[in-house]
Amino acid sequence: MVNIDGHTILTGVLAHPIRHSKSPLMHNNSFAKLHLNYVYLAFDALKNQFSDAVRAIRALDMRGINVSMPYKQAIMPYMDHLDETAKLAHAVNTVVNDHGVLTGYTTDGIGFVNSLLNRGIGIKGKNVIIVGAGGAATPISMQTAEEQPKQLLIFNRKNGHSFRNAERNAKLINKSHPGLAKVFDLNDRAKLKAALHDCDIFCDATSVGFGKLKDQSVVTDPSWFHPDMVVYDTVYAPLETCLMDVAKKAHVKHVYNGLGMLLEQGAASFKLWTGKRMPVDYIRKLLLKSK
Amino acid sequence: MVNIDGHTILTGVLAHPIRHSKSPLMHNNSFAKLHLNYVYLAFDALKNQFSDAVRAIRALDMRGINVSMPYKQAIMPYMDHLDETAKLAHAVNTVVNDHGVLTGYTTDGIGFVNSLLNRGIGIKGKNVIIVGAGGAATPISMQTAEEQPKQLLIFNRKNGHSFRNAERNAKLINKSHPGLAKVFDLNDRAKLKAALHDCDIFCDATSVGFGKLKDQSVVTDPSWFHPDMVVYDTVYAPLETCLMDVAKKAHVKHVYNGLGMLLEQGAASFKLWTGKRMPVDYIRKLLLKSK
Repeated sequence: MVNIDGHTILTGVLAHPIRHSKSPLMHNNSFAKLHLNYVYLAFDALKNQFSDAVRAIRALDMRGINVSMPYKQAIMPYMDHLDETAKLAHAVNTVVNDHGVLTGYTTDGIGFVNSLLNRGIGIKGKNVIIVGAGGAATPISMQTAEEQPKQLLIFNRKNGHSFRNAERNAKLINKSHPGLAKVFDLNDRAKLKAALHDCDIFCDATSVGFGKLKDQSVVTDPSWFHPDMVVYDTVYAPLETCLMDVAKKAHVKHVYNGLGMLLEQGAASFKLWTGKRMPVDYIRKLLLKSK
Repeated sequence: MVNIDGHTILTGVLAHPIRHSKSPLMHNNSFAKLHLNYVYLAFDALKNQFSDAVRAIRALDMRGINVSMPYKQAIMPYMDHLDETAKLAHAVNTVVNDHGVLTGYTTDGIGFVNSLLNRGIGIKGKNVIIVGAGGAATPISMQTAEEQPKQLLIFNRKNGHSFRNAERNAKLINKSHPGLAKVFDLNDRAKLKAALHDCDIFCDATSVGFGKLKDQSVVTDPSWFHPDMVVYDTVYAPLETCLMDVAKKAHVKHVYNGLGMLLEQGAASFKLWTGKRMPVDYIRKLLLKSK
């Protein structure tokens, strides 16, 4: 007999488009594995339905939702409370409904940090480079700053519309951690090459390497990397990006795609809703099988 | 692996209280059996959340919902269209969402008629007595009238608040079927006894026999029944009601509880949403097992 009954609690993800998301696979299989009476669905809401979709969280007594593009900012005014992670990232990717009181969180940053910790890699005292200042790069930068790196260099194209975001991110970080973050133009190739020489953790948090940009990489010359560093691409489709190819040619030991971050940001939402640890290793295998 | 994914379509039932409903069991097991990518949840909405819960049908792109007490009337103004069944019954128990266009139906009446047909019993040309004029009795009366019985006698307590509903129901029926329906006082015991003498199908559609009224029956003397009739109680908890006991003492051949109607009203909703026939025999076994 199917286990869904009158007591089953609804969760899900609100975005557009979203029907092809892997999040339902992650959460529903985790609920089943841990015998938790929840379901997680994808809600593809157009802009004119967004407000009603958010109201449904309380009206249908949902435990919470994930929020993805293009609603990560738009949902903020509907929250009763914003967690510090959401305030810093200027975005919400997870809503928790405590008996009608809605709190907004961002789990992308902790997802990145935890995916490194799973590999035994800490950020404390390290030289970190983050490329980008968008929806993924911002929470990653903010959370990385909290982990006490030695320095945090943010590279972003100066002629891109998000350069202002990069400067805003650095300013916010430096308010709590004076002098920690610096912003550079991604097109200043000499600067990037020099910075990579001392870099411990390099993370490309842009969409370069994904979709239409799948044949591109922010670093193309393997000699710019060195074997003892971490090269991290937040893209996970494809599982092997151009950036990762370049890093492997440079014999970089720690080369990662975004799958670990995807899992850990989901695990952080899962923990907020259920209080339980997502069975991440089990889910990783299912994700790889489903590709 | 769990089958719920980003394409899974949401349905459910909106009522208060509702978490103990058997409808999720019926629909979710039917979806699973027929490999349909839907889930059915119970939404326990308080009155001040009702409007937002209804708006969620479109915003979350639900295929539809069932509606139960106390919202069967309240939901009517939100419908774009009302099916004839809903207009006649002054109630909606099933909403179908066709790409944002909401149509309200009532499947209780067809549930009653189909549960009889399943037993090989037609209504055409029969003398029918229906007791009550409430949420179940009204759609049953309306649908019964459409099946061309010889006559339809509605019994209701004259001192009860629903006697006016009984008169309204008869008036509505007689508008399309002149002279078919007559209303009598349930407390006129001589009249009921006489009517039962010629009765082919007797249906108690009140809540007598259920809950606090479980030790009561609208007919207590077996000699008022005769073996060749149908005695139908819309109550299904308990599965054997006092009325059914009385009928069995009278050696009535066809004695039924409300389980068949519960199944067939659900099957009618299921058909409206999915276009498929609910596997009713399979679901009946699960329902009986789950008691």
